[in-house]
Amino acid sequence: MNDNGRSIITLDYTGMMISAQNSNGFAMEELHGLQNLLEQAQISILSQRDSGKLDFSKLLTSMKAQLHEIIDYSNAVAPNYDNFVVLGIGGSALGPLAVHQALNHYYYNDLPPAERGHRPRFYVMDNIDPVRFNELLQMLDPRKTLFNVISKSGNTSETMAQFLIIRDTLRQVCGDSYAKHIVITTDKEKGNLLPIALQEGYQRFVIPAGIGGRFSELTPVGLLAAAICGIDVKQLLEGALAMDQWIRDSKGVLSNPAQLRASLAYLSYQKGKNISVFMPYADGLKTMADWYAQMWAESLGKRFDRQGRVVNVGQTPVKALGVTDQHSQVQLYVEGPDDKIITFVTVEKFKATREIPVDFDLPEDIQFLGGRTLEELLFAEQKATEYALTLAKRQHQKIILSSLDAYSVGQLLLLLEWETAYMGELLNINTFDQPGVEEGKNGTYALMGRKGYETRKHDIEEYGKTLYILNEKRD
Amino acid sequence: MNDNGRSIITLDYTGMMISAQNSNGFAMEELHGLQNLLEQAQISILSQRDSGKLDFSKLLTSMKAQLHEIIDYSNAVAPNYDNFVVLGIGGSALGPLAVHQALNHYYYNDLPPAERGHRPRFYVMDNIDPVRFNELLQMLDPRKTLFNVISKSGNTSETMAQFLIIRDTLRQVCGDSYAKHIVITTDKEKGNLLPIALQEGYQRFVIPAGIGGRFSELTPVGLLAAAICGIDVKQLLEGALAMDQWIRDSKGVLSNPAQLRASLAYLSYQKGKNISVFMPYADGLKTMADWYAQMWAESLGKRFDRQGRVVNVGQTPVKALGVTDQHSQVQLYVEGPDDKIITFVTVEKFKATREIPVDFDLPEDIQFLGGRTLEELLFAEQKATEYALTLAKRQHQKIILSSLDAYSVGQLLLLLEWETAYMGELLNINTFDQPGVEEGKNGTYALMGRKGYETRKHDIEEYGKTLYILNEKRD
Repeated sequence: MNDNGRSIITLDYTGMMISAQNSNGFAMEELHGLQNLLEQAQISILSQRDSGKLDFSKLLTSMKAQLHEIIDYSNAVAPNYDNFVVLGIGGSALGPLAVHQALNHYYYNDLPPAERGHRPRFYVMDNIDPVRFNELLQMLDPRKTLFNVISKSGNTSETMAQFLIIRDTLRQVCGDSYAKHIVITTDKEKGNLLPIALQEGYQRFVIPAGIGGRFSELTPVGLLAAAICGIDVKQLLEGALAMDQWIRDSKGVLSNPAQLRASLAYLSYQKGKNISVFMPYADGLKTMADWYAQMWAESLGKRFDRQGRVVNVGQTPVKALGVTDQHSQVQLYVEGPDDKIITFVTVEKFKATREIPVDFDLPEDIQFLGGRTLEELLFAEQKATEYALTLAKRQHQKIILSSLDAYSVGQLLLLLEWETAYMGELLNINTFDQPGVEEGKNGTYALMGRKGYETRKHDIEEYGKTLYILNEKRD
Repeated sequence: MNDNGRSIITLDYTGMMISAQNSNGFAMEELHGLQNLLEQAQISILSQRDSGKLDFSKLLTSMKAQLHEIIDYSNAVAPNYDNFVVLGIGGSALGPLAVHQALNHYYYNDLPPAERGHRPRFYVMDNIDPVRFNELLQMLDPRKTLFNVISKSGNTSETMAQFLIIRDTLRQVCGDSYAKHIVITTDKEKGNLLPIALQEGYQRFVIPAGIGGRFSELTPVGLLAAAICGIDVKQLLEGALAMDQWIRDSKGVLSNPAQLRASLAYLSYQKGKNISVFMPYADGLKTMADWYAQMWAESLGKRFDRQGRVVNVGQTPVKALGVTDQHSQVQLYVEGPDDKIITFVTVEKFKATREIPVDFDLPEDIQFLGGRTLEELLFAEQKATEYALTLAKRQHQKIILSSLDAYSVGQLLLLLEWETAYMGELLNINTFDQPGVEEGKNGTYALMGRKGYETRKHDIEEYGKTLYILNEKRD
């Protein structure tokens, strides 16, 4: 905590550097060697921001001003519904899920209404598996459900397919009042959802122009779901603003947390470490790893650099959870190839504690646990894992949250967004586009029989001839 | 389906091989070139199996014989409890979770009791985060809950800590009858749980000697949880037995599915592809990706080969989910470095369908969806993603399940287990140990103050001096 009683984020990068135990770390000169590149990056980034780009940072202040509208709406509607369902995919799903899991009760949906402040249960429908989709609808009473359709363009096939089904269902069940069960989050002026919303009279929130899905959590995309489910969105934004300010104000790789983390990632990637593991030691941050994985993969996995040269760069994000994945992944991290860096995220003070009872009749193998707490065991395991990695000369670093609350989650989101932006600068690529998914979208249009895609359909079907298969024919 | 109406698994490896679109694939000669190695591997593997090792295969028949005991117990106790909670970590958690999610209702716990056949809700407590632990206990009435403690050695710190807390709670709440709320799954003759179970009179199931956690799903570790929650465990084992038979009987890389998949993985690893993505296109298989990730990472990430030479091998598993992660990871897979292979797992026929309504008033951008089904959209997206990867010269393959049911899940589990065993043979390492986690375990003992670990504690604390940190001091 700092003097204002607010959560502090600390970066501990000891495990990335040369030390007595690990000759395999970076030398301080290597970090300083990036200083020129980083200064150019900072100038480029801040000028992009001032010219209205880098909206994830630029928009924070205006979001703060719009917050009362989101909060008022949320407080008004929350008591009227048993369920709140996000229809969205990619950033529209991962951000809301990550913040919800970080800040609400782990079994939020299972709680009696009073224990979740008479807030609705929370679901995110981020896939089009027909079995799961039907199973969700089987469970929910649409008359008691509010659906939040999130798509900037109204062009996202999965979300729009879900929307068309839900709209149809609501019309059948709720008659003329069906529009009250839909709130859309989309572009202010464009796209396919907007005219439908205006014509049919849905409540509407705006995704500001220019901001991409994976950077949209601190816009109505994420803020609405958070506010509906009772999260302190003001604190979330305060934390984000504080981190944003820190990163914009501080100069030099050792002072600027985004520059520092991007530099460590960049040096590791230059040395052939093509894997970045994100491993929080807190169940609440499990889906934050999914959010980070989208951010890192989609922003940095790029074919061309900014001069149009083929570079095929990108570090593959891997999600893990401590201590759980010590029993799944750590064997590989310790003994496998030296091809990855690991970021632990730890929480210094959990908001609850649990003591393990003492029982002197037990064998020493387990008796030592008695009288200690679960979090002491968790901290010991994290530390011991770090130590084992160091002995194996594997690089790791730590993001330490003094506590896990709305303010620190806001800080963390902005740190990871800024770090990604800096990594993109160091790699000299466009961090904010995703041209590699166009081919798949067009192929889907083609296979779904959309007009104008006939040639592509033919090409895919030609390609699609299976040449090599194996199955069991003996039956 | 085959002639017996049973699900068939098909491997489509077209996308791994040289083709008109992808010059970057393997030549058939490369696969055939492994034939000698594979024949040696097969001899080694089958002789290990016959001598009582490779228990995941060896034990299937005896499990089938024990099944009535598990089923009878499950049917007897299931109606008496509202909740069934697994206390376990690693394989003890991932197997039960994967099979449950694959075969039960996606929102199983949210269903009214009648709709889940009056079977208990299902929870797996696979971490020691005190917040989540307390939140689970806050929600459950221990008097209506059956706890399944799973640990072969009774030495797993996390599970034993949970057990000690739960036992204490149950004693307080249920008095003398507390032992009825605990069922343990542990070794037949050894370990710390067994004497407690015998003395206090818990119901008990046996993990057969020799079988490691990640290969234990088709023992009482997984079968009990599955049976309690109403899964057809007979079909699960039938599918496993059929796959096991196929793999043991078939010779030659193009006939033996485990040899084929291991060979493709091995060739890719030899060519520098250190990442293996497992990407099912079915929500039910999402946690199967976690189970696979443990299997692949912990079995194959090894420092030494069987002659004791330092090799530091291992391909890092990455979990993804289609179509969801097309909006998160596919940008990287298509445009990033050529450092990974991708396995899609698809389901030919979902057990439900959902049509997207037709609405001729909509713009063409979304109108083309009308009249098609969600699964048609999902299939089109999978195919289009495959095509985009091929155009980008990235290698991928497919495991096709004709349907997703207990039989096919049994097949899939054994295919992946056998494939891992063959990959271990090709890499010439011990697939079945995990020496790299010992350091972390010992470090944990040391930091928790266990007797005999004082020197190590001192070493870790010395090491633990933080040398490089950054945090915000400006407040």
